[in-house]
Amino acid sequence: YGQLRGIGFSKAVSAGNAIGVKFHEYLEYLKDDPETKAIAFYIEGIKEGNELIKVARETVKKKPIVVLKAGRSKAGARAALSHTGALAGDDRIVDAAFKQAEIIRVSNVDELFDVVEVLYSCPLPQGNRGAILSEGGGDNAITADNAQKYGMEVPILAEATQEKIRPLLIEGMSAANPVDYGGVAEGNPQVIEQCVKACMEDDQVDAVLVTGLLGGLAEILNACPPAAEEQTCQELVNLVSRYKKPLFVHSCFGKETTKSLDMLRSSQVPVFESSERSAMCLGMLMKYASDKR
Amino acid sequence: YGQLRGIGFSKAVSAGNAIGVKFHEYLEYLKDDPETKAIAFYIEGIKEGNELIKVARETVKKKPIVVLKAGRSKAGARAALSHTGALAGDDRIVDAAFKQAEIIRVSNVDELFDVVEVLYSCPLPQGNRGAILSEGGGDNAITADNAQKYGMEVPILAEATQEKIRPLLIEGMSAANPVDYGGVAEGNPQVIEQCVKACMEDDQVDAVLVTGLLGGLAEILNACPPAAEEQTCQELVNLVSRYKKPLFVHSCFGKETTKSLDMLRSSQVPVFESSERSAMCLGMLMKYASDKR
Repeated sequence: YGQLRGIGFSKAVSAGNAIGVKFHEYLEYLKDDPETKAIAFYIEGIKEGNELIKVARETVKKKPIVVLKAGRSKAGARAALSHTGALAGDDRIVDAAFKQAEIIRVSNVDELFDVVEVLYSCPLPQGNRGAILSEGGGDNAITADNAQKYGMEVPILAEATQEKIRPLLIEGMSAANPVDYGGVAEGNPQVIEQCVKACMEDDQVDAVLVTGLLGGLAEILNACPPAAEEQTCQELVNLVSRYKKPLFVHSCFGKETTKSLDMLRSSQVPVFESSERSAMCLGMLMKYASDKR
Repeated sequence: YGQLRGIGFSKAVSAGNAIGVKFHEYLEYLKDDPETKAIAFYIEGIKEGNELIKVARETVKKKPIVVLKAGRSKAGARAALSHTGALAGDDRIVDAAFKQAEIIRVSNVDELFDVVEVLYSCPLPQGNRGAILSEGGGDNAITADNAQKYGMEVPILAEATQEKIRPLLIEGMSAANPVDYGGVAEGNPQVIEQCVKACMEDDQVDAVLVTGLLGGLAEILNACPPAAEEQTCQELVNLVSRYKKPLFVHSCFGKETTKSLDMLRSSQVPVFESSERSAMCLGMLMKYASDKR
């Protein structure tokens, strides 16, 4: 079972299944390991906390540390104790220590993987202002609500940016942020790439979150030719490289394998199955970037 | 696009894609509709709030109402307004009204589906005390932490219950709750059903959450014969019918299709891909049961 999870973990860190006894000793090694871009740990107890904070602060300058630490609850601490004999410690102290050490704390295994992937693949945002784009006002509204929950701002776009976007949309649709290209992007995904480009060019936008149908327009919905959607996805990848701003995609088809989604996944554009998780991960990335500054 | 989501929604409510203008009029109808067991809504704005509270309170006596309401954030409210012209309203007032009306509020589409499924398929728990069982102390600890986050208690099991469980485990493994049957259940899944049974028999346990490898022991891990795992899953379904206590399964193989998982899914045992989501849904079910009492 450990092995099963270990294989998973080794995608993220080269140390494999690191149930840390002396957490900071692993860090010492990983800090300078050229094959490690981000560090993920599951731990049940911490020994030598001061040493940990010291080493972690050095490490974080070079690469992010994400930790899933058990024992927030009494029952969780009990389970940790009976599992590895580790004393989970007062959780408020753990939280404070992690904060001081700039360690990112997550609350489950899915989050651990998501956050690590994003941290090592995406460019770091300069701030916490995000643009949200979708084919539907409903997706937009829910994603904006969740963005706020995870510390992301969704400001009204500069008039100059709105002027670039407005002609692409059906009259009356919102270019303010969230941007609603409902009705036009399905058949003509180039609209998505043009809207993303306008946002990337805007100094007041630090990251872009596309939510909705992208990735399944051609192969699943038959709404446009495959080449059109693939070209759009290629262009989105290019925009990320050019503007060095993170782009996240939440796709209703995020569970599927399509050529378009694979193009995004294999580059610097993470694809999520859940709109909330995409907002959560972008919020974490913004928080990490801000801590690092 | 509306249709795409509408099909999804119609699995949950017979009203289809109900972007509510007069929310309470839909409720009036669904309240007495024999084909509706649970009611799910996505709404952007509410008109006639007093009428809504009145009708919802009547409805909730018969069936649960789950609502995904946009507009928690400024940007979300802006998106809702530009989408349907609905004024989202002060979110604190919306929250208070939903609480008064005993409406369950969720924050994204995945949650909406999860919660509705659980509400119409599982028996209602008598309280909020849950037992957590797994093959690993790590899964146990994380799930216990998340249980607490969502309002579930994970108390130490009665000595009589622990005495039934202890002989099934390797010496020294915890029977206290969370229960750790690591090392024995993989090859002999009957251990899982016996532990669940002991918990179901305990008056101080209101629900059981199994987390870990169940569902993939035979077909994926080749750790036991398929018949053994299928028999266990059938027995778990029987236990739920007999003791009328909810049983939730989080499986590391929750994305897969195995005969065992399908047996659970097609009965009163929901299967989750994410441990946190299983804890969240069980917490919501406990909350709903408590509101209804």
